[in-house]
Amino acid sequence: VTDATRRIASYVIGSRWSNLPERVRHEGTRAFLNWVGCALGGCRHPAVNAALATVTEFAGPPQATILGRGQRLDLLSATLINGLSASAHAYDDTHLKSIAHPSAPTGAALLAVAERQPISGAEFLHAFVLANEIQCRLSNALTQTPAKAHVGFYMTGLTGGVGIAAAVGRLIGLDEDRMVWALGIGAAQGGGFRATHASMSSGYIPAHAGRNGIMAALLAANSFTCSEHALEARNGFADVLSTSTNWDALTGGLGEHYEVMSVAAKPYPAGCFIHPSIEACMELTRAEWSVPEQIESVELVVHPLGLGLTGRIEPTTGYDAQVSVYHWAAAVLTHRAAGFQETTDECVRDARVVALRHRVKATVDPTLAADEAKGRLVLKDGRVFTSHIEHCLGSAARPMSDHELEMKFMGQVGGVISEQRARQLIEQCWSIEKSTDVGKVAPSVWGTLQ
Amino acid sequence: VTDATRRIASYVIGSRWSNLPERVRHEGTRAFLNWVGCALGGCRHPAVNAALATVTEFAGPPQATILGRGQRLDLLSATLINGLSASAHAYDDTHLKSIAHPSAPTGAALLAVAERQPISGAEFLHAFVLANEIQCRLSNALTQTPAKAHVGFYMTGLTGGVGIAAAVGRLIGLDEDRMVWALGIGAAQGGGFRATHASMSSGYIPAHAGRNGIMAALLAANSFTCSEHALEARNGFADVLSTSTNWDALTGGLGEHYEVMSVAAKPYPAGCFIHPSIEACMELTRAEWSVPEQIESVELVVHPLGLGLTGRIEPTTGYDAQVSVYHWAAAVLTHRAAGFQETTDECVRDARVVALRHRVKATVDPTLAADEAKGRLVLKDGRVFTSHIEHCLGSAARPMSDHELEMKFMGQVGGVISEQRARQLIEQCWSIEKSTDVGKVAPSVWGTLQ
Repeated sequence: VTDATRRIASYVIGSRWSNLPERVRHEGTRAFLNWVGCALGGCRHPAVNAALATVTEFAGPPQATILGRGQRLDLLSATLINGLSASAHAYDDTHLKSIAHPSAPTGAALLAVAERQPISGAEFLHAFVLANEIQCRLSNALTQTPAKAHVGFYMTGLTGGVGIAAAVGRLIGLDEDRMVWALGIGAAQGGGFRATHASMSSGYIPAHAGRNGIMAALLAANSFTCSEHALEARNGFADVLSTSTNWDALTGGLGEHYEVMSVAAKPYPAGCFIHPSIEACMELTRAEWSVPEQIESVELVVHPLGLGLTGRIEPTTGYDAQVSVYHWAAAVLTHRAAGFQETTDECVRDARVVALRHRVKATVDPTLAADEAKGRLVLKDGRVFTSHIEHCLGSAARPMSDHELEMKFMGQVGGVISEQRARQLIEQCWSIEKSTDVGKVAPSVWGTLQ
Repeated sequence: VTDATRRIASYVIGSRWSNLPERVRHEGTRAFLNWVGCALGGCRHPAVNAALATVTEFAGPPQATILGRGQRLDLLSATLINGLSASAHAYDDTHLKSIAHPSAPTGAALLAVAERQPISGAEFLHAFVLANEIQCRLSNALTQTPAKAHVGFYMTGLTGGVGIAAAVGRLIGLDEDRMVWALGIGAAQGGGFRATHASMSSGYIPAHAGRNGIMAALLAANSFTCSEHALEARNGFADVLSTSTNWDALTGGLGEHYEVMSVAAKPYPAGCFIHPSIEACMELTRAEWSVPEQIESVELVVHPLGLGLTGRIEPTTGYDAQVSVYHWAAAVLTHRAAGFQETTDECVRDARVVALRHRVKATVDPTLAADEAKGRLVLKDGRVFTSHIEHCLGSAARPMSDHELEMKFMGQVGGVISEQRARQLIEQCWSIEKSTDVGKVAPSVWGTLQ
């Protein structure tokens, strides 16, 4: 392959919103609604506070709104902070095939750019879809058979900046050569690994990717050059990060097949490989038993990455919980819920939850799909209940409905804004496509705590 | 290995300038002198102009001096710009063993931090040495037997942010836990690949690493957390980037062995694998012939990476020349020099140079060292001359002398400041260790064009 970078550039420049299928356009709106809920829901997270305290000394003029914080920062700093908010609870969205979480940096970057120049709702959503589409396709190129990449690479950190460079480049009107450079500069800044999970840095990686993507597009606009084959060259992006790169996954069926249709909002604030186990346990709560002290043991059978990426045995913080299938099984069976409350430090350290967690066993079955899990509950009285989730909610096969997305949104922003305000916001997100200037909406609508 | 990250943190915090051998301290001063020459010499490069035009809109308050540009920007933006200046001509320095170029981001980041708080010359040089030492050791850990990493990874982009996070963390007084986080956040932002060579993005990668390193240290100071095993964890930095990581190269003999003694200033503005060929050709100019039209053919025998990384056959710009051993052979034999003039677009496109370039052949000999090359000149009259460079200047075995560094400096800054001013600057660099506040010196000494 000798022209992948240019083919992506050409596609991004030539794409037309009106040519996108209605379901893809609606998916763009859904992704944006979900992003606003995540960013508002995460805007008071300690990671956001720490990052805000850090950037204040060197931030530039107030160009873009910080969601829920009643302040504005330069567009790079705003992208970083809003990206952190949207990622903070690991509650954003997932492209399970490549294990990417594309929207957190995309929403942050594009909303910041929308305050820099007038951008209509349709242009904004179009850019949102393009950013995620390129991210997911590039992530697939690195990971889908015959390609192989180390599973420890944090795909959003690697590919986020490329997708966002493309989308921002489109919004600021880059020509094809400059778009090629922008993609390359975005790729050149890609990085990140999954050992950062269970710390504030887990959210930093996608947030940083958003900032890098803007930087790439703006540099290219000023004729800052890059290789014209950054993605496909020897010693280039794909060469160093993968073997047998799947180029068809990147450039095949552009404008016909939409990989964004496989991006799904997360129904639970936890690592995506925990979700099927959460549901397997939720189903077990419907059997006839009442308190966790009745439970002799819990046995889970999961996809290999269910333990490979989310198998933390002794979590001590809410961050750890994001990657502990053991904690979630115990928390769900104790509280019969899988929301914010189950991801607090208090819940992780709660004696009842800890006691039950020690009775959770998990084994791997490589024949299981990534969105599949089996549960088996043995009570002390000898009774046994089983469950089998073939596709968990929030998988590509079973995305959340519009109504479920609204309920998620309400639950996320409950501690930040009033219920009435939240309902207004949901309506404003659903109608974002009709906006004539998204950036003008931003400060008044989702900027200030109310 | 389970504690590499913490061992580095502990070493960086516990290191004492007065305990460093005199030769290491002097090497720190030499590296700084070389850095100032590179940054001033590159400060008018088109890449710097393009980046300055880009950052202006979102840069923060004037915290740090832009070398040679008569202006100040926030410390992140200043680090980016000065890092670009120092890298722009590929004239900085090399840790050949791991193919890293540590000083460009180090000097940029530390000088910016020195304007944020009072830092003595000794503290500054100590931080400079530590930043480079950690970079080189970490680069070795990824690349030295039995470790293996893709040669296309841009080592300075991967490890620069870690070394600089360490050094900045030391300057701002991080405790050990926060230093551990800083190293992790620096590692989490690491990225970059060599296909960016021969474009402005080649210098962007180290410059970006400098900025990332500062960000990592400042975030950690605000208790922004990271994995405590970011370097060594499964799915961590070394796991995703290398196989059979050489941990001893990272943590063995800390405080006893100094890898910075193997960092050498570049004598020529070209990729380091071209240097031995430049000297092989320079030696051939001493034979009895006068004009390149007499030359029938030039044959070079080089280390595999002499073609693998710097084998561009048809360069068309000065950027391309940085990675074209063919261009340099032709340019050196035509002009009997290997300086800035030989890396201009004009020289690359000069008909005489192009004509001779087409008569240059290069072959690989895997038994040659990286700093070794052989040359063979065949004249049209049948005479043959040969040369053999066992260790080129600017290799660890044959570093430039203090006097040669001064001559290089004078050549670099000649177009930017007066000769008298340049000589003063050299003296000020040599005596930097005695400064009580490096940051106070910066604006007046190297900030403004004079």
